[in-house]
Amino acid sequence: MRPALDLATAQYIVEVAATAAFAASGVMEAARKRLDAVGVVVVACLTAFGGGTLRDLLLDRRPLFWVQHSAYLWGVFALSIAAMVAMRARHRRPTEQAIVWPDALGLGLFAATGTQLALETGWPMLAAAVIGVVTAVFGGVLRDIVCNEIPMTFRDRRPYAVCAFAGGWAVIAADALGASDAAALAAGTVVTVALRGAALQFDWRIPAWRIRD
Amino acid sequence: MRPALDLATAQYIVEVAATAAFAASGVMEAARKRLDAVGVVVVACLTAFGGGTLRDLLLDRRPLFWVQHSAYLWGVFALSIAAMVAMRARHRRPTEQAIVWPDALGLGLFAATGTQLALETGWPMLAAAVIGVVTAVFGGVLRDIVCNEIPMTFRDRRPYAVCAFAGGWAVIAADALGASDAAALAAGTVVTVALRGAALQFDWRIPAWRIRD
Amino acid sequence: MRPALDLATAQYIVEVAATAAFAASGVMEAARKRLDAVGVVVVACLTAFGGGTLRDLLLDRRPLFWVQHSAYLWGVFALSIAAMVAMRARHRRPTEQAIVWPDALGLGLFAATGTQLALETGWPMLAAAVIGVVTAVFGGVLRDIVCNEIPMTFRDRRPYAVCAFAGGWAVIAADALGASDAAALAAGTVVTVALRGAALQFDWRIPAWRIRD
Repeated sequence: MRPALDLATAQYIVEVAATAAFAASGVMEAARKRLDAVGVVVVACLTAFGGGTLRDLLLDRRPLFWVQHSAYLWGVFALSIAAMVAMRARHRRPTEQAIVWPDALGLGLFAATGTQLALETGWPMLAAAVIGVVTAVFGGVLRDIVCNEIPMTFRDRRPYAVCAFAGGWAVIAADALGASDAAALAAGTVVTVALRGAALQFDWRIPAWRIRD
Repeated sequence: MRPALDLATAQYIVEVAATAAFAASGVMEAARKRLDAVGVVVVACLTAFGGGTLRDLLLDRRPLFWVQHSAYLWGVFALSIAAMVAMRARHRRPTEQAIVWPDALGLGLFAATGTQLALETGWPMLAAAVIGVVTAVFGGVLRDIVCNEIPMTFRDRRPYAVCAFAGGWAVIAADALGASDAAALAAGTVVTVALRGAALQFDWRIPAWRIRD
Repeated sequence: MRPALDLATAQYIVEVAATAAFAASGVMEAARKRLDAVGVVVVACLTAFGGGTLRDLLLDRRPLFWVQHSAYLWGVFALSIAAMVAMRARHRRPTEQAIVWPDALGLGLFAATGTQLALETGWPMLAAAVIGVVTAVFGGVLRDIVCNEIPMTFRDRRPYAVCAFAGGWAVIAADALGASDAAALAAGTVVTVALRGAALQFDWRIPAWRIRD
């Protein structure tokens, strides 16, 4: 029984699946906006790596994670080109369904790792939870900004960023209770994914601020 | 008589009021765009902290100011949630009137501190004045980009960024004349606020470039 | 015969011409969007310096190049103000024609220097080529985002970023073959400019992904 290794392997699998899901959501949004092939690859990269890059800039971490692990960069290039060759419009709805869970796993894992890295750097709790949200969510935000849309996650009333925020606090709580890094990471990911799953299952909505202009 | 302490207290009061004014302008713009509660909080934070964060990234300063003083982060969270609970559409116009002066004070203070920090880092004059403008103005620019608008301050012909630019040069001049840091900061803030006040009072307009397409 | 010096001079001339061309494209886009004078200057700076600034942030290089060489900053300020005073709408099409070649030279030079700096920092090949593209292209991307457009280079199907990408790989190949820095820089620039020229000459198009929504 080597649980630490198993956890690391699980983390790696989640990371790969989530990066692919983020890139796929970039490919689909780019295609919806009728970008050309270059635009599709760039938006896929921005969606997959934007949040983590912003995290690394804010925490002043170098090398950037996609520089250190440039296999991810090759993978997203390959995935976007394969998607353009293989996918057709009729595949979009099935693809959106297929990436819901890897996307939720990525939301949880990236929020948890972002929060944990910030805590290691000595950031206070709220700032650490915020950087977790930035890590998990700002790839999609940059995707929508480049595609000239108000970021979906700020207006569709579906709990998304807020699940990541809760997962970040789970990491902080686990850390304060003396849990190991691996346990805190797992706790944060599980909390985010469970909340996101419940939100989708029970069709939860975030309140919006009614306004008459 | 301890003027230095008084000045520090004055600076702190201005900083708090201006941060609240910036956050309030983010809340109002987010509400106008019918963002959900998560979007409102994010846009409020981006407006309040975006310019200073960009300054810290460009000057390579860590910890980021909202990480060092995370009370501001708590404050903006609380303010946006309170605003959503308490405010109604009919309060928007009064609120816009109420934040004109704290916003102008923030424009002046943030431009002056940005310029001063850049001078301390050894930046040349024009670059220091530019970073002052970035500090003071780019929170609002990011707010408008996320809300899918051309930034207001680049197109409404009201002097805003240009007042901050003048205030930055006042800091540079005071610094060159051997003034203390506190005096230079005060001079820059006063110049910006006076110009901004005059611009509003006398309805000054920036020339725009007429073009027939 | 002092070829090294000549090459440095050539690089400097290209850099100046390309920075002016980038700034001019910012001025024109800002005017098209009817920004005011402040907006025109800001968008000109963003277009001219945005890509290089993002490169310096990602590579963690300080001082930023426009802080180290603040003459460029003065130059872009002067150019945007001169353009607003002197240019009229009827000059826009001629100006667009006039900047095609300096813009292509800048595309090549900035992609090559970006890639080379990344290689010096120890980045892997693909990441280095990507940062070259970011350096050369993201000024224009930021220009279009601020002007509330989907970045032109991601949707107009004209080879632009992809020429910079090829030039980056030329730098990487030259470097791997043991060429001097100057030779690698020249090779990368020439490859990009030649491809860009051929793309314009023969009206090449990038495939776009057809989609029925």
